[in-house]
Amino acid sequence: MTGSPEGHSPDDGARRRTISGFSNPTVKYLRSLRDKKHRRRERKFLVEGLRLLTDARETGHVPELLVMAAGRDPHPLVAALEKAVAAEGGDIVETTPDILSKITGKDNAQSLVGVFPEFDTALDRIERDAADIWLVAQALRDPGNLGTMLRTGDAIGAGGLILIDDCADPFGVEAVRASMGAIFTQRVARASWAEFETWLRGGAGQLVAASLREAVPYREAAYAAPCFVMVGNESRGLPAEYETACDLRVTMPMLGRADSLNAAVAAAVLGYEVRARLG
Amino acid sequence: MTGSPEGHSPDDGARRRTISGFSNPTVKYLRSLRDKKHRRRERKFLVEGLRLLTDARETGHVPELLVMAAGRDPHPLVAALEKAVAAEGGDIVETTPDILSKITGKDNAQSLVGVFPEFDTALDRIERDAADIWLVAQALRDPGNLGTMLRTGDAIGAGGLILIDDCADPFGVEAVRASMGAIFTQRVARASWAEFETWLRGGAGQLVAASLREAVPYREAAYAAPCFVMVGNESRGLPAEYETACDLRVTMPMLGRADSLNAAVAAAVLGYEVRARLG
Repeated sequence: MTGSPEGHSPDDGARRRTISGFSNPTVKYLRSLRDKKHRRRERKFLVEGLRLLTDARETGHVPELLVMAAGRDPHPLVAALEKAVAAEGGDIVETTPDILSKITGKDNAQSLVGVFPEFDTALDRIERDAADIWLVAQALRDPGNLGTMLRTGDAIGAGGLILIDDCADPFGVEAVRASMGAIFTQRVARASWAEFETWLRGGAGQLVAASLREAVPYREAAYAAPCFVMVGNESRGLPAEYETACDLRVTMPMLGRADSLNAAVAAAVLGYEVRARLG
Repeated sequence: MTGSPEGHSPDDGARRRTISGFSNPTVKYLRSLRDKKHRRRERKFLVEGLRLLTDARETGHVPELLVMAAGRDPHPLVAALEKAVAAEGGDIVETTPDILSKITGKDNAQSLVGVFPEFDTALDRIERDAADIWLVAQALRDPGNLGTMLRTGDAIGAGGLILIDDCADPFGVEAVRASMGAIFTQRVARASWAEFETWLRGGAGQLVAASLREAVPYREAAYAAPCFVMVGNESRGLPAEYETACDLRVTMPMLGRADSLNAAVAAAVLGYEVRARLG
């Protein structure tokens, strides 16, 4: 576009500084965000790597603090990110690869880390009519499974992921990484089962879960939008009471010795079936 | 059953001993099996927990060495396991919870750990007509994904998992755990791409992969047994050459921003579709 701020200088807009000491308070702050307790208190989360940060920017989410390794090779996507941070009045910190490794806890640190404010996860911010599928996870403990569900939700056109009871932290580094950027496109809500059930029954919505008890084959079930596809805890599955509250219980073939699938796999197989059947 | 060896004494058959020192060579040996290099040299693998060890026993796989916490409560499944180890002339070691934690590397150690000889993973041990679906993973780096594929394979009645190029270790603790016992029911083979292609084309077999290039919708494709469902590396996907070599390239809906699914999810969605369509 003509008229865009071409020739943007690194000193325009963003507050820039360089950090070279491990004991710098910003380094300590960033490291603390890897700890669940601190992260939740600060209500911030970390996103690592140019790819995820670009996904974030392209969906309108710009980090309030961007940390970069000094002396990187120029890259147009990094420049675009810096420009976006500057435009929002955010902070940019340049530091050494060693300090970046300390922040990310990895030997081969990504050369970019962004800090974002946590999203509002109130259940009443879910607009159920905004999508015909929603995923629901109950007491899911594995952050990788949770991130994978977000990623699958993005693929099947779900509106978001509703977390029931005591789930893993959706804003933890592992969940954010496994979401492959879907943390920025899927709405996330947290609720107790009682809150969720009350909210769900306050409007249209079909609650569906895979089940071993009286259930219909998942390829033959009659799905209806908005369809809420629910999976339970990795070890215990869904409580019987929650299964009973479902509008539809479906079975998936289990032809071997095992009686269950990985939770993220179950959500995906069922979610893709619902996607195909709702058209 | 009458005639079964009721009243089996703990001293029948198995070689039993107690270990109370952290520096005991058996403890060092067991710990070394958590390290990929040592594990591969020894060609042994670890299985943790009563549930997985019972799955193993019920499919005819008995540990050559069983390590248990001393002073556990009696349990019929533990007794059955001890009896099976004794019948096979294996070793049983009793030790302290602290030493078990050291062996498993976890604070809350499972109270049982078994050592098994690695299975033969030669490609020519795959009998392709033994199943109508086989899963194939190319350069899959995440052991959790690999174990999840084994678990899914068990559920869809696949014959096993063929690992192409440089994959994660299927006998590592994390893959074994994620397989939820399917490491004992699914055949596992390892091969280079060239070896696999030669073997595949030496008999019947349809090679199928999800692809972004000229491909048919996965719900409309004509699958044929034995069907080999292949997924590629988590970051790079399948090499173009491998995709080209497929008999069938299929697309799955990707309605959001992302252009790919988690590898184990892709294998499951496609695998379940093939399962349903082959009948």
